[in-house]
Amino acid sequence: MGRITGTTRLLAVLGDPVEQVRAPSLVNPLLERLGRDAVLVPMRVRPPDLAEAVRGLRRIGNLDGLLVTVPHKIEICRYADELAPAAAVAGSANALRREPDGRWRADNFDGVGFVRGLRAAGHDPAGRAFALVGAGGAGAALAAALLEGGAARLAVCDTDPGRLDALVRRLAGRWPGRVTGSAVPRLADADVAVNATPLGLRPGDPLPFDPSGLRAGGVVADIIMRPAETRLLRTASELGLTVHHGDHTLDHQLECYADFFHLDRRPASP
Amino acid sequence: MGRITGTTRLLAVLGDPVEQVRAPSLVNPLLERLGRDAVLVPMRVRPPDLAEAVRGLRRIGNLDGLLVTVPHKIEICRYADELAPAAAVAGSANALRREPDGRWRADNFDGVGFVRGLRAAGHDPAGRAFALVGAGGAGAALAAALLEGGAARLAVCDTDPGRLDALVRRLAGRWPGRVTGSAVPRLADADVAVNATPLGLRPGDPLPFDPSGLRAGGVVADIIMRPAETRLLRTASELGLTVHHGDHTLDHQLECYADFFHLDRRPASP
Repeated sequence: MGRITGTTRLLAVLGDPVEQVRAPSLVNPLLERLGRDAVLVPMRVRPPDLAEAVRGLRRIGNLDGLLVTVPHKIEICRYADELAPAAAVAGSANALRREPDGRWRADNFDGVGFVRGLRAAGHDPAGRAFALVGAGGAGAALAAALLEGGAARLAVCDTDPGRLDALVRRLAGRWPGRVTGSAVPRLADADVAVNATPLGLRPGDPLPFDPSGLRAGGVVADIIMRPAETRLLRTASELGLTVHHGDHTLDHQLECYADFFHLDRRPASP
Repeated sequence: MGRITGTTRLLAVLGDPVEQVRAPSLVNPLLERLGRDAVLVPMRVRPPDLAEAVRGLRRIGNLDGLLVTVPHKIEICRYADELAPAAAVAGSANALRREPDGRWRADNFDGVGFVRGLRAAGHDPAGRAFALVGAGGAGAALAAALLEGGAARLAVCDTDPGRLDALVRRLAGRWPGRVTGSAVPRLADADVAVNATPLGLRPGDPLPFDPSGLRAGGVVADIIMRPAETRLLRTASELGLTVHHGDHTLDHQLECYADFFHLDRRPASP
């Protein structure tokens, strides 16, 4: 970490809770390697405070952008001036940047980061069948990127019928005939089952789904990064299934962030 | 600087411009010495954006307090829930902290920092006559602390008659018979002449006052910290006057900040 002075520019990651967020530990060393006079700081914002917090943060002249995590990824789209295609299709965003003209543009790298991570681990989604549990911000982004990445079939599950139907309709509009939705997980036909819910963040959480429903040789992926070994992944391991950890996604998102925030270029003047 | 992670707590310094502000360079090494998982970051906020920015920053759960510098020291008092006595008398504040009950308390350490710095340099204000140029936020704080510190006479000068009269009236109510106000600097009777205007921050600025009006052996003090050698102090030196640099104040404010923000104790839980 370089010295913070009056000239240091800011990025912030918004979440609630925020203590577990790994982005500062990954992005700050990157900023340092690139020789940037900038830091990424965590900011805990409760859901009812999001509108006011973001309105205020947009007034900070040396704040160049935001990363956004649970539970704000869907709601944050309301406070952007424009949505990149991945954010528009997913209905959620995890990064916002200030454009030279002062507008705030939102994009979503959860999906592309996850798909890059799957590919790097040898699980290219092309032609495979997926069961995705959770149709919130992260789930929506993963769904869009998996379909974009060539997934043959995607069964989305969520206990909230409203948001499940809205997501399935949006996905089916763009990728017809490959998406189904249900209130309970449909694992039997899946090659890969993915947890995109927050279940597993806290020690007493129930499993988001029972991995024993998956076929032998199947892959269980979790988007949760801390703890690295969620109860879901431990249970799947014990069943002899292949597991895919949450940190793969963030590792591959780093390059997306660096590009989005122009970290390899000089900062825009304030 | 320690590593910034998701658990790091925040302090911010608000100013416009903010690039010249020294607080991050002084406070962050102090936080590190104290082993605190916290950083102070600069935030540039334009005057018309202050209300919205502060409203937003109050919604950041891990932001424990603000330092405030030019030009926000007066206006910021409107956004505090309570004013400490030094802030109330000066009509300006340079530090706000979140109390355990969620209220925001404002205090002002410009004055006490300046007076401690004068004393440490051998210029105890007790019994001396002062000419103070600038009745803005910093000037008001210095005026109150100089009178509190025993200054025999204080001649305040400002080109804005409204804010000059308001300050003189407030000071005279508390320290009767020792304060006068004027639109032009009255240096002839002064032992110490103080610049409390922003003139000198930028290379082409005119002098805030002509130090040749001061008696031989007089002291010229500047609150400007960067550049360290303002044109005012250079001119005063060339005239054989004693000079007192702006950084003395911040050096002595550090201990005030550490106390105000409880930097030697564990942080309050979010």
